[in-house]
Amino acid sequence: MYNAKENKTMIKLAKQYQNAPATPLGKAATLTGDIDSLINLSLGDPDQITNEMVIQASLEDAKNGHTKYTHALGDPELRSALKNHFQSEYGVSVETNEMMMVVGAGHGMYLALKSILNPGDEVLVPSPYYPPYPQQVELNQGIPVSVPTVKGNQFHITVEALQKAFTSKTRAIMLNNPNNPTGASLTKEELTQIVSFARENKLIILSDEVYRGFSFDKEFTPIYQIEGARECAVVFGSFSKDYAMTGWRIGYAFGPKHVIDCMRELNEGICFTTSSVSQRAALHALVHHEEILPSLRKVYQARVDYVYRRVQSIPGLSLNKPEGTFYLFVDIKDTGLSSEEFCDKAMDQARVLMLPGTAFGESGQGYVRIACTVDIPVLEEAFDRLEQLNY
Amino acid sequence: MYNAKENKTMIKLAKQYQNAPATPLGKAATLTGDIDSLINLSLGDPDQITNEMVIQASLEDAKNGHTKYTHALGDPELRSALKNHFQSEYGVSVETNEMMMVVGAGHGMYLALKSILNPGDEVLVPSPYYPPYPQQVELNQGIPVSVPTVKGNQFHITVEALQKAFTSKTRAIMLNNPNNPTGASLTKEELTQIVSFARENKLIILSDEVYRGFSFDKEFTPIYQIEGARECAVVFGSFSKDYAMTGWRIGYAFGPKHVIDCMRELNEGICFTTSSVSQRAALHALVHHEEILPSLRKVYQARVDYVYRRVQSIPGLSLNKPEGTFYLFVDIKDTGLSSEEFCDKAMDQARVLMLPGTAFGESGQGYVRIACTVDIPVLEEAFDRLEQLNY
Repeated sequence: MYNAKENKTMIKLAKQYQNAPATPLGKAATLTGDIDSLINLSLGDPDQITNEMVIQASLEDAKNGHTKYTHALGDPELRSALKNHFQSEYGVSVETNEMMMVVGAGHGMYLALKSILNPGDEVLVPSPYYPPYPQQVELNQGIPVSVPTVKGNQFHITVEALQKAFTSKTRAIMLNNPNNPTGASLTKEELTQIVSFARENKLIILSDEVYRGFSFDKEFTPIYQIEGARECAVVFGSFSKDYAMTGWRIGYAFGPKHVIDCMRELNEGICFTTSSVSQRAALHALVHHEEILPSLRKVYQARVDYVYRRVQSIPGLSLNKPEGTFYLFVDIKDTGLSSEEFCDKAMDQARVLMLPGTAFGESGQGYVRIACTVDIPVLEEAFDRLEQLNY
Repeated sequence: MYNAKENKTMIKLAKQYQNAPATPLGKAATLTGDIDSLINLSLGDPDQITNEMVIQASLEDAKNGHTKYTHALGDPELRSALKNHFQSEYGVSVETNEMMMVVGAGHGMYLALKSILNPGDEVLVPSPYYPPYPQQVELNQGIPVSVPTVKGNQFHITVEALQKAFTSKTRAIMLNNPNNPTGASLTKEELTQIVSFARENKLIILSDEVYRGFSFDKEFTPIYQIEGARECAVVFGSFSKDYAMTGWRIGYAFGPKHVIDCMRELNEGICFTTSSVSQRAALHALVHHEEILPSLRKVYQARVDYVYRRVQSIPGLSLNKPEGTFYLFVDIKDTGLSSEEFCDKAMDQARVLMLPGTAFGESGQGYVRIACTVDIPVLEEAFDRLEQLNY
């Protein structure tokens, strides 16, 4: 009966996954594990580790019994602290039953899409975009529709572009503000226009604000500060970037109570709850907010400024003044190379790993993304090497 | 433009969720938070907290830098330790690229279902079942098909029952071994028959073994010990129950490499990775395996034995000899009450919260589930009260 040769064929994957290629982020992640000597400017995982006070306090909480399932919406103390934090930091009032702790903002986005999408619903995705977005829409029976943003407009999404992509099937708009990979930080005026457009057309805004801590020249505007946004927007945030806590897998979603309730129920069949210990760590991160975020922001700003300067001095490369995040989206069109060719050359000649702009959608052709997730001496070495590239 | 009255209607949920009732587990969880004086025998979250050595060691690892994203399949050291553990404990050899760390076994089950189901595929679900199973199948476009198990056969699923439910659309069988809520622990012979049946009909077995540590009279048989299972089964396990680590949200999936690869890729759009700190805790739990699991097993066995004795002395109640897990599935049919009526009476008259058997599928009618997740003095008080119930 038993036949070892059947090994590979016994379990067939669902039809749509039988020939799925690796996603660009996946490839870079796999590569990194294998090749130690590269300079890796490809990943969104900073070199910074979590503040020791945060680790110590969460350890003590674990020893005191915080090792069990939390409430399905999340630790009540943490939700209360988040409520207070948003009130004092942004003047935004969110009730503790209008928020849910999730396994990273992406998990929140997935649950929100699953909560709202009917099969065939279209979701407007400003492009370049965080690579999982279209997949997340498709995994939930929706159709992602790219809406291009352009360097000439600082990669800011406009209502005109959204209007052009809008159809009777459009159901939601995904925002990533500040944007990975372009760094675009939307202004209060732009957000106000987008909210009006959404309300007029009964669209839902899914606003991913994981880089909210890293807005450089101007203050970050959370969409909930916009009048009328509360009823049409679901917002995602995370402790990953603001508090150097990527590994803890802890984020949050804010939304109208019935949406959050639906997300919570769906999550009973997916992750049930997020880590109790990570939630305690998030609580302590909020407590030590002032000791953590400003200094992290300073670190990234210095790196971003450094890379901005270095890029400008390399013939053929150009970029906009960085607005937010710790990514730089560099225009390489004048080199005559495609994004992939440039990245391949950088890898082969300089052993510097970057992601081609096309990993973030077609409108990323002609660009590469540099992640300032390594320290300045490493960036210096990377650019000393990149300066020598022969196109 | 802004109209507060629109508040509730701006975001419409997807059609199938507009009238979704709360799941039974959800209701019990919510209730518990509100009413402190109840004796809660309803939840699968033990009173035990995580071993202090595990907590201490994992947070030391965090201080040493384990606060970042791990490999998408999970911390390599942990996967290596799991491989060794399964080899030494069960004589089962699983490669580190045939396993993936997940946010609890349920998350693994969800990813596996998503990886293999085409719309309309049927999944055989032995009933009574862990409540999220049918929802997990439906969330992935499949059709859950209940296959009844009966008290007379110790609630063991049989190939005859599976055969009867089998159609040309059947694609997979979900096993929960040992079973929540019935405690049924399948024998090696039964598993061998199920594997043969699956292979003959090209079915995939999804084997949830989260209670593997709690098999009482006979040794637990992991399905991977069965010849021919490796090619047709995906297996799920967890640190939640075996190591009192529910809050950490850390489980694992074993399967053929191409299935695990697909699950990993899908997870890039869902949770990306599991908590790095929880993974370190899992690693230390494996290291301290012998100091943790046997004593936990002893605690649960004593409770289960105690409840087994007490139940037998109450007229109208009966149950099978417990085989595994820390649940007891009590036959209340002779009381003349339905499962819901019995639970309501227990709640109103005795302030003891249990779940009606129907929370676990229709074949649970006439039963209630008691979770031995509280200590013997509490169980004693609960049964002193339950003895006084007037039906």
